[in-house]
Amino acid sequence: MPMTDDDHLVALRRDLHRHPEPAWREFRTTARVVEELDRIGVEEVHVGRDALADARLSVPDADDLAAWRTRAREAGADADLLEAMDGGWTGCVAVLEQGEGPTVGLRVDIDGLPREESTDSDHVPAREGFRSETGAMHACGHDAHATIGVGVLEAVTRSDFSGTLKVFFQPAEEVIGGGRAVAESGHLDDVDYLYAVHVGLDYPTGEVVAGVGDFLAVTQFHAMFTGEPAHAGAAPEAGHNAVQAMATAVTDLYGIPRHGDGDSRINAGRVGGGTASNIVPEEAFLQGEARGATTEIRDFVFDRARQAMEGAAFAHGCEVDVDVEGEAPSADSDDELVDVVHAAASDHPAVSKPTRRGSLGGSEDATYLMQHVQDRGGHATYVGVGTDHPGGHHTATFDVDETSIGIGVDVLSEAIVETSRSPP
Amino acid sequence: MPMTDDDHLVALRRDLHRHPEPAWREFRTTARVVEELDRIGVEEVHVGRDALADARLSVPDADDLAAWRTRAREAGADADLLEAMDGGWTGCVAVLEQGEGPTVGLRVDIDGLPREESTDSDHVPAREGFRSETGAMHACGHDAHATIGVGVLEAVTRSDFSGTLKVFFQPAEEVIGGGRAVAESGHLDDVDYLYAVHVGLDYPTGEVVAGVGDFLAVTQFHAMFTGEPAHAGAAPEAGHNAVQAMATAVTDLYGIPRHGDGDSRINAGRVGGGTASNIVPEEAFLQGEARGATTEIRDFVFDRARQAMEGAAFAHGCEVDVDVEGEAPSADSDDELVDVVHAAASDHPAVSKPTRRGSLGGSEDATYLMQHVQDRGGHATYVGVGTDHPGGHHTATFDVDETSIGIGVDVLSEAIVETSRSPP
Amino acid sequence: MPMTDDDHLVALRRDLHRHPEPAWREFRTTARVVEELDRIGVEEVHVGRDALADARLSVPDADDLAAWRTRAREAGADADLLEAMDGGWTGCVAVLEQGEGPTVGLRVDIDGLPREESTDSDHVPAREGFRSETGAMHACGHDAHATIGVGVLEAVTRSDFSGTLKVFFQPAEEVIGGGRAVAESGHLDDVDYLYAVHVGLDYPTGEVVAGVGDFLAVTQFHAMFTGEPAHAGAAPEAGHNAVQAMATAVTDLYGIPRHGDGDSRINAGRVGGGTASNIVPEEAFLQGEARGATTEIRDFVFDRARQAMEGAAFAHGCEVDVDVEGEAPSADSDDELVDVVHAAASDHPAVSKPTRRGSLGGSEDATYLMQHVQDRGGHATYVGVGTDHPGGHHTATFDVDETSIGIGVDVLSEAIVETSRSPP
Amino acid sequence: MPMTDDDHLVALRRDLHRHPEPAWREFRTTARVVEELDRIGVEEVHVGRDALADARLSVPDADDLAAWRTRAREAGADADLLEAMDGGWTGCVAVLEQGEGPTVGLRVDIDGLPREESTDSDHVPAREGFRSETGAMHACGHDAHATIGVGVLEAVTRSDFSGTLKVFFQPAEEVIGGGRAVAESGHLDDVDYLYAVHVGLDYPTGEVVAGVGDFLAVTQFHAMFTGEPAHAGAAPEAGHNAVQAMATAVTDLYGIPRHGDGDSRINAGRVGGGTASNIVPEEAFLQGEARGATTEIRDFVFDRARQAMEGAAFAHGCEVDVDVEGEAPSADSDDELVDVVHAAASDHPAVSKPTRRGSLGGSEDATYLMQHVQDRGGHATYVGVGTDHPGGHHTATFDVDETSIGIGVDVLSEAIVETSRSPP
Repeated sequence: MPMTDDDHLVALRRDLHRHPEPAWREFRTTARVVEELDRIGVEEVHVGRDALADARLSVPDADDLAAWRTRAREAGADADLLEAMDGGWTGCVAVLEQGEGPTVGLRVDIDGLPREESTDSDHVPAREGFRSETGAMHACGHDAHATIGVGVLEAVTRSDFSGTLKVFFQPAEEVIGGGRAVAESGHLDDVDYLYAVHVGLDYPTGEVVAGVGDFLAVTQFHAMFTGEPAHAGAAPEAGHNAVQAMATAVTDLYGIPRHGDGDSRINAGRVGGGTASNIVPEEAFLQGEARGATTEIRDFVFDRARQAMEGAAFAHGCEVDVDVEGEAPSADSDDELVDVVHAAASDHPAVSKPTRRGSLGGSEDATYLMQHVQDRGGHATYVGVGTDHPGGHHTATFDVDETSIGIGVDVLSEAIVETSRSPP
Repeated sequence: MPMTDDDHLVALRRDLHRHPEPAWREFRTTARVVEELDRIGVEEVHVGRDALADARLSVPDADDLAAWRTRAREAGADADLLEAMDGGWTGCVAVLEQGEGPTVGLRVDIDGLPREESTDSDHVPAREGFRSETGAMHACGHDAHATIGVGVLEAVTRSDFSGTLKVFFQPAEEVIGGGRAVAESGHLDDVDYLYAVHVGLDYPTGEVVAGVGDFLAVTQFHAMFTGEPAHAGAAPEAGHNAVQAMATAVTDLYGIPRHGDGDSRINAGRVGGGTASNIVPEEAFLQGEARGATTEIRDFVFDRARQAMEGAAFAHGCEVDVDVEGEAPSADSDDELVDVVHAAASDHPAVSKPTRRGSLGGSEDATYLMQHVQDRGGHATYVGVGTDHPGGHHTATFDVDETSIGIGVDVLSEAIVETSRSPP
Repeated sequence: MPMTDDDHLVALRRDLHRHPEPAWREFRTTARVVEELDRIGVEEVHVGRDALADARLSVPDADDLAAWRTRAREAGADADLLEAMDGGWTGCVAVLEQGEGPTVGLRVDIDGLPREESTDSDHVPAREGFRSETGAMHACGHDAHATIGVGVLEAVTRSDFSGTLKVFFQPAEEVIGGGRAVAESGHLDDVDYLYAVHVGLDYPTGEVVAGVGDFLAVTQFHAMFTGEPAHAGAAPEAGHNAVQAMATAVTDLYGIPRHGDGDSRINAGRVGGGTASNIVPEEAFLQGEARGATTEIRDFVFDRARQAMEGAAFAHGCEVDVDVEGEAPSADSDDELVDVVHAAASDHPAVSKPTRRGSLGGSEDATYLMQHVQDRGGHATYVGVGTDHPGGHHTATFDVDETSIGIGVDVLSEAIVETSRSPP
Repeated sequence: MPMTDDDHLVALRRDLHRHPEPAWREFRTTARVVEELDRIGVEEVHVGRDALADARLSVPDADDLAAWRTRAREAGADADLLEAMDGGWTGCVAVLEQGEGPTVGLRVDIDGLPREESTDSDHVPAREGFRSETGAMHACGHDAHATIGVGVLEAVTRSDFSGTLKVFFQPAEEVIGGGRAVAESGHLDDVDYLYAVHVGLDYPTGEVVAGVGDFLAVTQFHAMFTGEPAHAGAAPEAGHNAVQAMATAVTDLYGIPRHGDGDSRINAGRVGGGTASNIVPEEAFLQGEARGATTEIRDFVFDRARQAMEGAAFAHGCEVDVDVEGEAPSADSDDELVDVVHAAASDHPAVSKPTRRGSLGGSEDATYLMQHVQDRGGHATYVGVGTDHPGGHHTATFDVDETSIGIGVDVLSEAIVETSRSPP
């Protein structure tokens, strides 16, 4: 079993942690990863439009992108790479050809979250001086994921792996906006075996889950209701009340029927509208999501949701525009790869609890990549690498136990090598 | 002042009271009125399609009509008259030409209500033996109205009235379904002055209100929501829930904005739907009404109501059909005739409280006739003749103080004669 | 394998079919079953309050019961038995003691449905002269179930069964109102193995499902909303609108959140309220049900449902009373008995498709009995006996293929005997 | 008729316009007014807690107040006055005792609005260099009102007025938060005649409305709904959804019945809640208002609104806190003073259209002061002084025609003097 260069990886992780960038703004992060790929000697790296299909969701506006690009430049990112990523075409695909054999993929996501990081002295990044400098935060461990991606690549170059390894450094997972663009990029088309990885998920350091599954398919949407304003005292009849339309839509959304074939979910997670007590509201918005145990159930819920929102708007003389902001299909991990990872984890001295199966409860757009490979006859699994994390995912005190980075690199690189030795 | 033959009129009223017929089934009532017109010697009487335009609302189905027609036949109604009224063309117009002069109209309504009459011994009709024999009930005094119509005609024949008097015995007021058909019959076109009359309205015997006004315009509607049934346990997603659609429509209806130009009203007065706890409901109905201080405000409310119901149906994947069941415009009484009635009432020894103006709170389709006359430059007023009534209008113990019949006949005939003497 | 006396059983089934009685009115049905038990020579039969705990739900009012009891008397039911069942204490428990051994139970339900039966000549009961004479209908096969109960008892008396067999002829399954009263009667307390049976369920003749499971727990409820009436035109502010409260409750009910631990259901299956277009409605009702994959989930949904209805009533100044009309817990069949039934079915020449497991989708109060036995360490299974049925369950043309009665008797009696031979 | 020193007043108005301060932050405005009172020689001036009762609504928090106080200090406001106003006790009462006679009051409001002012070159304040420097805006003419208050005081000192004149420079009208605190300050208790004034209101320069009336009573409220957050995918059942509660409250609010005694209004003008698509929302707010043609109708609507919001919260397992943010009773102008103002306006050469009566459509907390005087037997009127305003009230391009300031000063001072000459 190859042992990773932990010091270097920890330093890399901390550097990424200090420069978190939210979805589609991962300019500096991508540039930093490419720097590592150069160091390792990976010859084929796809950046920008070469790495992504034209299916990105929730891309921010030009001003927003420009500000982050400027920030990345100031933080030392390579100008040519920034040029290639102009317009938010972030992330990259690293391809390592190393003899005959299967094509194996590894997907890691790289984006941060738009939230403040804790300044508490108990919070290791604050105490040790690698707290975020960008206003955003790596509050879900994607800094560790990118680092694991680099570490696995390096480990595989030193191994007897025979075949092709592609590592997908995916942007914009947090808004479930990047998965489809990577899946349809073409680079997945010949992948026989795909691994995806996530640290934490409430599993402690020492536990490795070989196959996380039961991902709910999800569609996240934003609906804008537009009516007519009016003075609420003098002429309420002149108005078409967008807040009434939105409120009716909320109740109608939750009224979408349950599905006899499996779990479904609906949520109106964020709403707002109107300007003042005495004005009939002209505008209101509703941001929500539909989920399903299968992609079909998710589609059923979302179709009904559109209908519900359009009916509610019509009932109040308003218009509604519904935009999809993110989506991911359902997926499950394949036994073939679960076996491989379970064996690798069981052999690792620092893995105290190798687990075959787990479930996430939520959604993830790695499912786009998994489904893409599975639809072509390949296999995929989503690996959970336990890490002690003081705060919960997405909170200000989230942090990873850095020993889990080495565990992740070891288990995944071992599984990948094993996949080339005895393709399952 | 002509004094009425009270005994005859009281007997007539009691006979009509014993045979109440709901909207569009006034077969025996009409025949009984025509009998009186013959007795009085009125030469021109229009019955059936001669008396009504093709604008009737809420006409019952053929079986229902046939049953009441048979009942009327058995109760002695003239066969030829019944033939003329076939299909529910009930009511009649009596025309009395008596020299040169203005054309004056009097409108009385003649229908009963579909409710049981009290059997309590305190209830005079029960005690005195003229309680309803039909299952319906004259619970709003239209028996007295028809009687007043006959009494006024007779009184005018004996007076120095010079001109033409038309008495409109209107069917289907209770469903506000007959007013428009009378208004557009052609018989109103040359009416210069129109009187309408209602007994009671919470005014006691001895009070006469010369001009009732501020009638709210009204539209009554019936909405049928149709979806798809499904087993609520096994496959709720297969259903389109008509009860949900109807319930959403109820809340949307009450959410129609107030109007800055005057009073508006909305009501979902009767609803129902579904078949069993475990079935996603396929059908539901909603019966309601929209009102407004003006016809325009009523139309505003009803237009929004349609929109609300269509939106609610769409939101739940259902269809909705909306039928208008009754309607009446807004109207007000004219000062010119209010003066005439007020003077006549003030002169009457049994009128202790002559009042110029009152308001109804509710709706009435006499407004169709009033508006028709006013639109052509004529004048109209709606006269309230007080009567002590033990139970409220539309209750099982409603009854009229029969002395008010004579008062009504006297005041109205005196006003009509005065109108011909000094056209206002 | 014992072969059943098919002719006698078919005659019995047809006799029961001709006299269907809805929930808690199974006077004649019970009497007829007891007659058969006498014929067979069963010595211990519990009828009336001896057979049921005081936990009946949805018992009709006294007049309703009296009418059906009179009808049963006229149809020849024994007077003493009717006396014992007075007040709707219908159904019976037959106990057969036949040597040492385990106590085995068989539960069959016996009630009909309140619906008209088809008169179509394609409908066998109509053509063959055993169509319902009561206005109700055996549209779910409970006539066959009662017959199977009798047949199994008789078969077991002729077998080498050693132990005690109890057959529960349960009333009021269709309103899920009888299961708990039987479960808590005391007669289940010593049952080691319980079989329940249902014909049809969309399985054709020749298929036998050894263990139907995944029953959703259910609570059926009736909510009565009471407000204040008012004239919708004159004084809407004086009203408290019960239809608005109910409509809000409908939308709030469907808004109860999904449950992360498994399936949940909510339905407002039947609603109504109000009296007329122009009256603010004083009363409205809502009949519905809550279900869950587990009893806990069902309770979660029903608790939230109460809260939703109380909040909706309060919001509109109304009161609400919520009554439970029926309920059943969730349950699943045990592998131990599934094996036994599957073996018996596999051996039967007329069973072309023995199936181990199936699911119902809906609810059933046999679960009360199953749970009662399982909670005491016993085992239970719910057996589906396929039968070709021209119309769906609960429709006017439902009928059973009578050959399935014999199959049911054979498989169940064989399983019961086998249970005593080798208790699982 | 006294003629005003227009140049000085125009300069004052422009100075106030350049320093608009929203409700309860009128530090610099009050100080500037007091400076003018000193100039005129008004000896009795009440500032801070001497001018206001403890009934202020919508007072901002301490940080907000401190920032505006600092700004005022930097803009030259007197330190002692600022100290007196600490905590947002802004505004002042000027008392002019000038011989025997009645006590006459004049109320002017002085606050600006929290909105940006137009930078368009067509907008006179932008072009002429007195556009707002504070980020807020005098977009409703209160700069002109304060100026008119000063002008009237000065004019009266030069007149033969005999009696006491009190000018109320009221803060916080825009949030209807200051009226009650002024009304209950004690300074109104001996006022026999009260004038209030507003410029614009869509009346052009040259029109003066002697008695604006039919003010709707209003209550503005803020409701905070609090539930329990939960992950919308993994465990929706753990949440209590504050957005659902708020949305239900919105539909319930609009469902409050119309009132038979007069106009009512309800509006949910601004709402919001939730944090992200995938979180069951923990918090939501609803800002709205209830109005009525009478204070009683307003109270009816607001009582029902509380009930609706509490019911909606309960239905979804949430809590709700409702705060009143502003309120004003209904009021009407008295004929006695309408006559006086109408006469003064009719005599003014620049008033081309003196009008007796007008109506506002909206609400105003001058009604607290009017009602306070009227309740003690005094008289009040609310005077509309027309002014050509390019943009509507509360828009970025609102401005006043400065010639209307002189008209307002002239007409009001003449009316005040006349009131002392011949008390009506």
